[in-house]
Amino acid sequence: MANELTTRAADYSQWYNDLVLKGGLADYSAVRGCMVIKPYGFALWENMRDVLDKMFKDTGHVNAYFPLFVPRSFLEKEEGHAEGFAKECAVVTHYRLKSDPNNKGKLIVDPEAKLEEELIVRPTSEAIIWNAYKDWIQSYRDLPLLINQWANVVRWEMRTRLFLRTAEFLWQEGHTAHATAAEAIVEAEKMLHVYADFVENYMALPVIKGVKTPNERFAGALDTYCIEALMQDGKALQAGTSHFLGQNFAKAFEVKFLTKENKQEYVWATSWGVSTRLIGALVMAHSDDQGLVMPPKLAPLQVVIVPIFKGAEQKALVDEKVDEIIASLKARNISVKYDDSDHMRPGWKFAEYELKGVPVRIAIGQKDIENKVVEIARRDTKEKKSVPSENVAQYISDLLDEIQQNLYNRALEYRESHITKVETWEEFKSVLTEKGGFISAHWDGTSETEDKIKEETKATIRCIPLNNTLEEGICVFSGKPSSQRVLFAMAY
Amino acid sequence: MANELTTRAADYSQWYNDLVLKGGLADYSAVRGCMVIKPYGFALWENMRDVLDKMFKDTGHVNAYFPLFVPRSFLEKEEGHAEGFAKECAVVTHYRLKSDPNNKGKLIVDPEAKLEEELIVRPTSEAIIWNAYKDWIQSYRDLPLLINQWANVVRWEMRTRLFLRTAEFLWQEGHTAHATAAEAIVEAEKMLHVYADFVENYMALPVIKGVKTPNERFAGALDTYCIEALMQDGKALQAGTSHFLGQNFAKAFEVKFLTKENKQEYVWATSWGVSTRLIGALVMAHSDDQGLVMPPKLAPLQVVIVPIFKGAEQKALVDEKVDEIIASLKARNISVKYDDSDHMRPGWKFAEYELKGVPVRIAIGQKDIENKVVEIARRDTKEKKSVPSENVAQYISDLLDEIQQNLYNRALEYRESHITKVETWEEFKSVLTEKGGFISAHWDGTSETEDKIKEETKATIRCIPLNNTLEEGICVFSGKPSSQRVLFAMAY
Repeated sequence: MANELTTRAADYSQWYNDLVLKGGLADYSAVRGCMVIKPYGFALWENMRDVLDKMFKDTGHVNAYFPLFVPRSFLEKEEGHAEGFAKECAVVTHYRLKSDPNNKGKLIVDPEAKLEEELIVRPTSEAIIWNAYKDWIQSYRDLPLLINQWANVVRWEMRTRLFLRTAEFLWQEGHTAHATAAEAIVEAEKMLHVYADFVENYMALPVIKGVKTPNERFAGALDTYCIEALMQDGKALQAGTSHFLGQNFAKAFEVKFLTKENKQEYVWATSWGVSTRLIGALVMAHSDDQGLVMPPKLAPLQVVIVPIFKGAEQKALVDEKVDEIIASLKARNISVKYDDSDHMRPGWKFAEYELKGVPVRIAIGQKDIENKVVEIARRDTKEKKSVPSENVAQYISDLLDEIQQNLYNRALEYRESHITKVETWEEFKSVLTEKGGFISAHWDGTSETEDKIKEETKATIRCIPLNNTLEEGICVFSGKPSSQRVLFAMAY
Repeated sequence: MANELTTRAADYSQWYNDLVLKGGLADYSAVRGCMVIKPYGFALWENMRDVLDKMFKDTGHVNAYFPLFVPRSFLEKEEGHAEGFAKECAVVTHYRLKSDPNNKGKLIVDPEAKLEEELIVRPTSEAIIWNAYKDWIQSYRDLPLLINQWANVVRWEMRTRLFLRTAEFLWQEGHTAHATAAEAIVEAEKMLHVYADFVENYMALPVIKGVKTPNERFAGALDTYCIEALMQDGKALQAGTSHFLGQNFAKAFEVKFLTKENKQEYVWATSWGVSTRLIGALVMAHSDDQGLVMPPKLAPLQVVIVPIFKGAEQKALVDEKVDEIIASLKARNISVKYDDSDHMRPGWKFAEYELKGVPVRIAIGQKDIENKVVEIARRDTKEKKSVPSENVAQYISDLLDEIQQNLYNRALEYRESHITKVETWEEFKSVLTEKGGFISAHWDGTSETEDKIKEETKATIRCIPLNNTLEEGICVFSGKPSSQRVLFAMAY
């Protein structure tokens, strides 16, 4: 199994696809650009979702559910938003099929069932949600309104990649309404910190918090905050965004509230989201040439036990010991699977669970039992160790923490060694092509320069880091004066 | 608030809508037939989903996610299935909008972005899932395949009602594949029992388990098992279905497997689902003229505490006592809210939480504290009682169990008194119009008779109960011989 994987060095992009497909995370579907999330991949998503959902609820948010469809005229109401999404959306025009009179057994669109107004399958839900908020918000007492939705959305991307960019994807989208701009900005920043906390402490992936340039903002936002992570091939990946929407949607949908001072004012808004794209980030950040590497805190399966035996007698002996170990692991809420299936050899199983990225593997045979030990292999470093079977649960619990920390440290080290300060355009280009990673460079602050750099190199400004140091300098491209460095990178 | 509700006696249907809207469960949306599930309603759905999800996992199922869209040609492959769903589906024909050249700021469908093959927004996922299973199933070792999906689906219903029948709804759909017909039937029946367990023990609603007549079967099934519940107006509601699909979908999508005996055979299938419709059932089964009545095991909020006080000093005294009570309730995993908002009077709050169906209300004032008691009101019977504040958590824990049981008993009593055996057609019609409920009557077993009864009375055969007693008789409509009674009713 494992030896069929493409290596990172040979073809990074194919290596990623191999991991997703052979690791059982997802599969292509018959619908262009849409994927099937397979049980192992969905279990990972459920773990991510459950942690995030709790974080959202702990910060005062509640969940709700809004319609899948956005009437065309709603999309039109916020101009920037319409421009951003109209070009890549699935359009429902009819509500019925009928039998093809010329072709038995076939169906055709019933021309009599044409909708008066087309419906767009939501690419994001600002429009439909702000139309609802109009009825829900009357007075300052109704604010803040802190709502999140877990949903599927569709953006008709031309080039798709499993998890990273698919026509349909799963995500959460928070949509909040506030009485003042200041409160909305606090909210947008708060959720950025929640995302960073999740990605760093659960996905074991360090991020840079920043704000997007106007070019890279969400369609309809006044400011887009983002977290940016670095993948093993030196490309950046935007892992989450949080938008300060100002009063744009409130004005588009006429959402006003009565202030304490008895005045009618437009409401202030934020929206924020992360998606199944995070699974792609997780895969690309930690995995190796033998397969996936799951961070213990999110792994669908944390421990697998493989028995080594000949004959029923040895098996019975092993089973008994394994039962004990399973009970002690479950008592600590550690998920464990005993793979005693008899049609595959231990070596095959070892490779299979390496491919799936299970953090810890226990192998146990008669000799181990005699010596009161078990063999423990950790996925991240592939070290094997014989460990006393007494207190093995505590050992594994500590080991899972250690693996989680090690993955984070490894990723942080890589990231830190891949932020390169450059001063000249030649340097910029050579670092970009030869080393990759983030390039910290002075920029003159104009969209024009940003566009030209993108045209020439495909690199984009990933973000202006929060709390950036102000520092006089010269734009790396235009030579004009600059007040701070920003982070450029090639990006997913 | 409460006094604005329509009563059941005045207009049952309006009463239901009032509860859903004013109780904060859902709202109409701007998209025809689609609703917004508001935070309180969604919290209820989350509780239902979490319990069901655990039940599915405990019976060996895993979750996955399949595409939202079904290519038209896939729907065509299973003839009965196509006929059942083609007439009520949302059809995506284009993948882009563009600016209207004649109307600034408006969008039109871009005629150049027409799909070669239309995509149907899934009304159910058999077709897209069985197309994937084709690649996943090769040998008997791949079976059984036990997969569930939580998803949104769209059926273009002409007459919609909040929760009960909406164009888009949320549901789960299990899709399993088996090596033999017998195993598939066991699975279909097992899931029916899981559903019955959930509806009876969590929703506090007794159900009758049965099998549908061919007329009422799912489009594409060989057998449809169902659970049927009775609402307070004497109408039945199908609360869940589980289908034995035979080899229909395996044949339509060419899904074969290698048996242990090395033969190629078609796979056997089941599918089963429950939806947000269950929320409608829960509302209609237990609520009263003062509002919703939530069964404690699913209530988004189980206990509300309302302080009675004058001035800050009394308030501080009450707060202190309430903190204690909250801590003791939370220690027992009982959800509780302290509503000490100062802009509404206690009487308004009482009515509000009655409307929302919160199972238990605690009121507490200075006098109560002096007397070492609290006032406890239960929502189901509206009884109020002064209870020693010592051990109040244990009292409430028991009370929640008692309310849960009482709701079930009440619903069971109503249901039992509304199953009427009839022998003649006159009797049938008079029971149907005057008493309602289930009518247990002999039926000659033909679709023709079933159709005629439906035409004449709108009553349908809800099910043939599982383990029905065989009993010679005369069909209530045709006078022909019959071997068993079946259950008729008006239905949602």
